Amino acid sequence: MKRTIIRNCMLLDDGAEHGVISGACVAVEDGRIAYAGPEDAYRPEEGPSDTLDACGALALPGLINAHTHVAMALFRSAANDLPLQEWLNDRIWPLEARLDGEAVYWGTMLGIAEMLANGVTAFSEMYFFMDDIARAAEAGGMRASLYRAVVGLYGDGGRIADAVRVHRDWDGAGGGRIRVGLGPHAEYTCSTAVLRSCAERAKEMGCGLHIHVSETRREHEECKERHGMTPAKLLKSLGLFDVPCLLAHGVALEEGDIQLIARSGQVLAHCPGSNLILASGVAPVKRMLDAGVTVALGTDGAASNNNLDVWQEMYLAAVLQKGVLKDATAVTAAQALAMAAEGGAKALGCDGSIGALRPGTRADLILVDTDRPHYWPLTDMKRHLVYSGGARDVVLTMVDGEVLYDRGEYPKLDIKRVRAKAAEAAARLFGG
Amino acid sequence: MKRTIIRNCMLLDDGAEHGVISGACVAVEDGRIAYAGPEDAYRPEEGPSDTLDACGALALPGLINAHTHVAMALFRSAANDLPLQEWLNDRIWPLEARLDGEAVYWGTMLGIAEMLANGVTAFSEMYFFMDDIARAAEAGGMRASLYRAVVGLYGDGGRIADAVRVHRDWDGAGGGRIRVGLGPHAEYTCSTAVLRSCAERAKEMGCGLHIHVSETRREHEECKERHGMTPAKLLKSLGLFDVPCLLAHGVALEEGDIQLIARSGQVLAHCPGSNLILASGVAPVKRMLDAGVTVALGTDGAASNNNLDVWQEMYLAAVLQKGVLKDATAVTAAQALAMAAEGGAKALGCDGSIGALRPGTRADLILVDTDRPHYWPLTDMKRHLVYSGGARDVVLTMVDGEVLYDRGEYPKLDIKRVRAKAAEAAARLFGG
Repeated sequence: MKRTIIRNCMLLDDGAEHGVISGACVAVEDGRIAYAGPEDAYRPEEGPSDTLDACGALALPGLINAHTHVAMALFRSAANDLPLQEWLNDRIWPLEARLDGEAVYWGTMLGIAEMLANGVTAFSEMYFFMDDIARAAEAGGMRASLYRAVVGLYGDGGRIADAVRVHRDWDGAGGGRIRVGLGPHAEYTCSTAVLRSCAERAKEMGCGLHIHVSETRREHEECKERHGMTPAKLLKSLGLFDVPCLLAHGVALEEGDIQLIARSGQVLAHCPGSNLILASGVAPVKRMLDAGVTVALGTDGAASNNNLDVWQEMYLAAVLQKGVLKDATAVTAAQALAMAAEGGAKALGCDGSIGALRPGTRADLILVDTDRPHYWPLTDMKRHLVYSGGARDVVLTMVDGEVLYDRGEYPKLDIKRVRAKAAEAAARLFGG
Repeated sequence: MKRTIIRNCMLLDDGAEHGVISGACVAVEDGRIAYAGPEDAYRPEEGPSDTLDACGALALPGLINAHTHVAMALFRSAANDLPLQEWLNDRIWPLEARLDGEAVYWGTMLGIAEMLANGVTAFSEMYFFMDDIARAAEAGGMRASLYRAVVGLYGDGGRIADAVRVHRDWDGAGGGRIRVGLGPHAEYTCSTAVLRSCAERAKEMGCGLHIHVSETRREHEECKERHGMTPAKLLKSLGLFDVPCLLAHGVALEEGDIQLIARSGQVLAHCPGSNLILASGVAPVKRMLDAGVTVALGTDGAASNNNLDVWQEMYLAAVLQKGVLKDATAVTAAQALAMAAEGGAKALGCDGSIGALRPGTRADLILVDTDRPHYWPLTDMKRHLVYSGGARDVVLTMVDGEVLYDRGEYPKLDIKRVRAKAAEAAARLFGG
């Protein structure tokens, strides 16, 4: 058994003064949390152990990015301050048409490096060149739920069969960290036959789905014109809600959609930064929470964010609802933090096994240095984290008990090579 | 003459590929920029000089915080997720009633430490215990425009006379970095006689004013009921726009107000983070820019933000307008950056002397490390800064040619003492 004891840390504790205890430790055994609590109450079993001194930092569950297209890190800032159609038609799609597996691999590695520095330990991916993405996730050591994108208004072009193959080849890889599902892109890019077929394959394989839903008012209304019902109702009618179906965006959801999603037990991946930058609007998150929908947080791709920083999404998830609804109580700091942790765990189909620090969960955790001016004085730790803190404060990121980021260093990545290869790929995509 | 040459840096350049040039240098002579451009074109005059290696970092003008109450850093996260009236009546005002000069001094020092780490070089302050704030600004080395708060619905309680004294005692202190004006708090906290009197004293002293205006819809409408006109029109009618009058918030401004402010040449300090967290809404910034209003950025106090991070305000200034107006072109990255630099300079009455890196401006500058995953690949530097970058990337902060922050170190501050004294003050305020 491999045991690591993270000593001298703080832990969130709602019952404690300022919502935090110090003098705590977290014991990790074979990639799982064995103990998280006061250091003086820890009684390890016999056997050797490594010690990691947290230097007083706060241990948190790793943040979870529930909706992204990681390789789009290559397109960071390549297209902004533009209308959506120009963004897509003139910038993003031509760039994507030039992508190859090599570019997607290094774009994903770049995004993984960024996410690890930001304290993100797991992500839910929808893109293509999925073998390259899976290789990058495996090499990078992150936890990932991968959904091979399926588009097709006139047949699926063999994409569903390829998605089934990806599932066979990669589900359970990376020591179980990699899980594979199907990613029907959206109602407006897939025929009903393709959508239904995706649902059927997912049922057969026992895997989940991941789809964009009601990201903009326009697509939402066009679906109603085409099908006489909202996208969420259409997906339900086609069987997509018979399996776990991770729904991205939901900006234009109506009350009936929200009730349906709540009843179906599906998770909504809220992407507030992307929704703002692409001028889609603000999703009705407060109403979703009130209806009992589990909300997770996604960065979307870096072409529309422009980073992969779940801290920023937590902040936005809380403050946007307050500002837009004119209700300072709309979404609390604690709720925003839960979206990034427990909500993300449920989004990735890892409910109960990540997103919390307690005995039995996987050791996907981060250390956050709160001994910095923007955390002083200590009044309420959760509010400090969500409203004042940020990715800048992450000093260590661990997945499955393995340290993947440590104060600017990447023990498992050749970061200089990642930078150079990503720059090469970008030069190929943008050049000539 | 004291000369420092900042070598091996990048500089923004709209004409260059990706909007940036490398291999540049900035020469600082007696606190002023003497040169900023390609290193190989720099021809220094004779004489000794120090060299500072920027290690390839990007040199930017220091960001400017155009509306804040710095000492409220002591109340960080002490009151959130609450309705505005509860926030004010039950939390903030009772805390403020317990403030003393010692607490304000150390709260201000804490805020200064935070702002320096965030690359903020100047701030515009409205609060009380102004001598203590001035002492902190002087000791901390920051540039500050200080406006002693004046409230009074039934006479000013001697506050205007005290503000005049503060002007006499402190205007021009700190080697000219400290400027003093009058801070009538708001229409709803001052009688028209008090407002008019503030305007008259400001005219006599040749100084500016700083006031909250139309922060919420409610106060805006109540002013119309009381006075038959909007707050902006009332201020104009009372003579406040005859001098530079820095207007904070402006969430509820009407079209006529915006036109009036544009014609009067006044600056609006936009505080998007505070306006969201307090559920006030989103100011009509796009309409202000279209009308020709100069917009600056403010964090407001840390009790309603909860940090003093102008990067976050830049980000919000750009993306909120896009999201709320459903127009991705509404405010660009370049416009948001200009709000934090040139806009802030004008807000502080330092137009042309700070907010830009060019020969003759004061050497208020920062170095930003862009050799980090969230800046890769390099596509467009201004978009990278506003949409992906943040305070985390600031490695050095200089005011008037003096280094005040350098990779976590504060050459002029005893940061441990600041932390301890701020914690002591907070314990006194919150305790017993």
